[in-house]
Amino acid sequence: MTARLSPEATTALKAALAARFGNAYSDAPSVREQHAHTLTYIPNQPPDAVVFARDEADVVAAVTICAAHGAPMIAFGTGTSLEGQVNAPHGGVAIDVSGLDGIEAVDAADFDCVVGPGVTRKALNARLKDDGLFFPVDPGADASVGGMVSTRASGTNAVRYGTMRENALALRVVLADGSVLKTSTRARKSSAGYDLTRLFVGAEGTLGIVTQVTLKLHPLPEAIAGGVCPFQTVRAACDAAIMAIQAGVPLARVELVDAVQMRANRLHSGIDLPESPALFVEFHGTEAGVAEQVARFGEIAAEFGGADFRWATKPEDRTRLWQARHDSYWASLLLRPGAKPLATDACVPLSRLADCVEETMADIEACGFVAPIVGHVGDGNFHTSPMAMPDDPAEIAAVKAFADRLAHRAIAMGGTCTGEHGVGQGKRAFLVDEHGAEAVAAMRAIKAALDPRDLMNPGKMLPD
Amino acid sequence: MTARLSPEATTALKAALAARFGNAYSDAPSVREQHAHTLTYIPNQPPDAVVFARDEADVVAAVTICAAHGAPMIAFGTGTSLEGQVNAPHGGVAIDVSGLDGIEAVDAADFDCVVGPGVTRKALNARLKDDGLFFPVDPGADASVGGMVSTRASGTNAVRYGTMRENALALRVVLADGSVLKTSTRARKSSAGYDLTRLFVGAEGTLGIVTQVTLKLHPLPEAIAGGVCPFQTVRAACDAAIMAIQAGVPLARVELVDAVQMRANRLHSGIDLPESPALFVEFHGTEAGVAEQVARFGEIAAEFGGADFRWATKPEDRTRLWQARHDSYWASLLLRPGAKPLATDACVPLSRLADCVEETMADIEACGFVAPIVGHVGDGNFHTSPMAMPDDPAEIAAVKAFADRLAHRAIAMGGTCTGEHGVGQGKRAFLVDEHGAEAVAAMRAIKAALDPRDLMNPGKMLPD
Repeated sequence: MTARLSPEATTALKAALAARFGNAYSDAPSVREQHAHTLTYIPNQPPDAVVFARDEADVVAAVTICAAHGAPMIAFGTGTSLEGQVNAPHGGVAIDVSGLDGIEAVDAADFDCVVGPGVTRKALNARLKDDGLFFPVDPGADASVGGMVSTRASGTNAVRYGTMRENALALRVVLADGSVLKTSTRARKSSAGYDLTRLFVGAEGTLGIVTQVTLKLHPLPEAIAGGVCPFQTVRAACDAAIMAIQAGVPLARVELVDAVQMRANRLHSGIDLPESPALFVEFHGTEAGVAEQVARFGEIAAEFGGADFRWATKPEDRTRLWQARHDSYWASLLLRPGAKPLATDACVPLSRLADCVEETMADIEACGFVAPIVGHVGDGNFHTSPMAMPDDPAEIAAVKAFADRLAHRAIAMGGTCTGEHGVGQGKRAFLVDEHGAEAVAAMRAIKAALDPRDLMNPGKMLPD
Repeated sequence: MTARLSPEATTALKAALAARFGNAYSDAPSVREQHAHTLTYIPNQPPDAVVFARDEADVVAAVTICAAHGAPMIAFGTGTSLEGQVNAPHGGVAIDVSGLDGIEAVDAADFDCVVGPGVTRKALNARLKDDGLFFPVDPGADASVGGMVSTRASGTNAVRYGTMRENALALRVVLADGSVLKTSTRARKSSAGYDLTRLFVGAEGTLGIVTQVTLKLHPLPEAIAGGVCPFQTVRAACDAAIMAIQAGVPLARVELVDAVQMRANRLHSGIDLPESPALFVEFHGTEAGVAEQVARFGEIAAEFGGADFRWATKPEDRTRLWQARHDSYWASLLLRPGAKPLATDACVPLSRLADCVEETMADIEACGFVAPIVGHVGDGNFHTSPMAMPDDPAEIAAVKAFADRLAHRAIAMGGTCTGEHGVGQGKRAFLVDEHGAEAVAAMRAIKAALDPRDLMNPGKMLPD
């Protein structure tokens, strides 16, 4: 178990960091608070100090100083994780890597790029556009690539383009002892040794700090069509999406939004759509291919009562539509001002999705929660975020109990408690239930092998 | 370092295995020899004994007995690996899992199945056909699923459907102490903890023995078109393939065959194709989509001098064509009777593929080798297999030196020494060169964490 440093040891640690980092060091309360969890009901647990790294050498220096002082170290990108991944429950140092934001190489012939972990997905895509390329992984927030690697993030395009698991090709990582390794080469596939890339993807900074990422890119599609199709019920929307996937329609995006979320989106974006469940869909391909997909999907949607399809033909309309979808989290805050949402992240086999969503809606109704639902239907993943007043322990207890039931429901259906947010502090309690004691023991053994003193982001992911 | 058991300890081990396994135990020399490497110039190193497991409990029993006696244990599927993965350099026990060949579940709604590690890819696809599904990973041999998991296998469909990395969803694995873990759930994606699935995929049985595999499946395409297009040069063929990929043509298969391999295929299959470099291609999609892909690819091929495209429109013609391609390894044996090939497996970024192939062809010519080339061009992966007489040490030394040069050439181009065959015994010497000492040290730490006594397939993958 990691212990908090003594006041004397903390003073010595801070002095060493200040000496090395100068202006790029801070222990101001506001900076420390900002470098811990701020987004949901999970309490803010600030680190003892923050350093702002500008390159890999800075990260190595920070890690080496922390290791010498036995201090916890927590990588920080944009702070948009939802499960308390950037909190410092045992104190220690937040190593802010947002300054490692260089786009070091973009190779249009090989469809890859090399970037710093501080680059955000929007900044990256703005740079890629002129090369006719894009990076598909798009969590709600404008997250940093390093954070997306570390939570194994996905988003609305995963059904077609995969998650960070599939789109991170190679990493450079600073280990707990300050040594630096690279996980792989630029080859598209490899059978040369253990898959270190995939080991660090989703490790939430508990095994090392990512300092460089080689990402897979994709050609911008020749043609894009998208729109919104309202359905009578959430089940009808889910069933239409699943039928389309089973029929082989290569959906690029297929997102469920329930009536409550739609109300929030109308409040937030002023978007003019009916307050009913709906699918936001997008198709990528050649002109003819997209036209064919649209026609097929339209037929399938109609079979399930999907009508009044609204197509966004102009790029700016499409952008507005997807911005509304991406802003769902922020929009949901308007439904109950002052309350904070508890983000849930169940992911189940496709065939169980409608069951899982319906049972969860019944639970929401029974609890009387304000809890909008959005879903990456093509992956079997959905989020509902019941809102609780942060200063009301009874409310927080009630939403936590609800989230527990939902996690266990997903696991019982052959799914996972977290499809894309990660474990952090919020989902630690479910890990053994989901994976079994043997698998968690193997994870612990790996953690102990690479970070024997438990200094890399302690108190996260693995249960105590 | 793993040491061979003493004769007394071996006798005790064999007695314990014989007592537990009865008829499913053998130490007959022919059986032992058959359960070690037989395919290439790598010497056959038989285990001390073989047990034939019929279920997971048998595997657990075998592992537990081996652990109690401190004996190496080596999983065996079909024995078609190419880098000595099934050899027993330190003796020990081959645990034959080919009897775990049940197809336990096929879920057409979720596009997945649960199978034993002994199921072969052809047996699986025969079963899936009636459900309108297929499993795309197709190494040359009719390999077992467990072996394909363990070498992170791919094949001709990887450009479109991915490798075992993407297509293995979850595993059950027996660890070195006889405990059993499951790596994941049936959810299509997850952020719940370290990615144990990807850790065991490609681990070549050095971390545990796979007893069950959940695989991702794909819908059989509505329409398929395929054929062969001859080119003047290997570079022109590579360039045409790369241009098609860059243009977004969703090739399902794009395979390079050089003139030497084409000669071998003509000898072996009697296939009537000119002795020139060629691309074997296949397109999957809707009727209209495939027609569009065919037209686009035809235009691109023509730009690079590809002419005289031969389409295989009937399914049986297509099967014959791809069987010829899959039989390349066996066909190549006809080019120099009595000689054994040394399989190489370079994989480089797409943009370097033509350079790497051309430099390698010049090397082949300078050496005077008989060395046909086939390539999974869409992945940047190609194989050339110079033939050496097994009893001629000078020839073996020459082909080994050639393979060394090729591995280093691929690594210098930002690629890997092995795209899909794995490391085994044959590629251990390149691991540090490819990944660096720090990454190999991390791999060693993981190995030591999960198999502290180095009893799971010792002498493989990690260099001494």
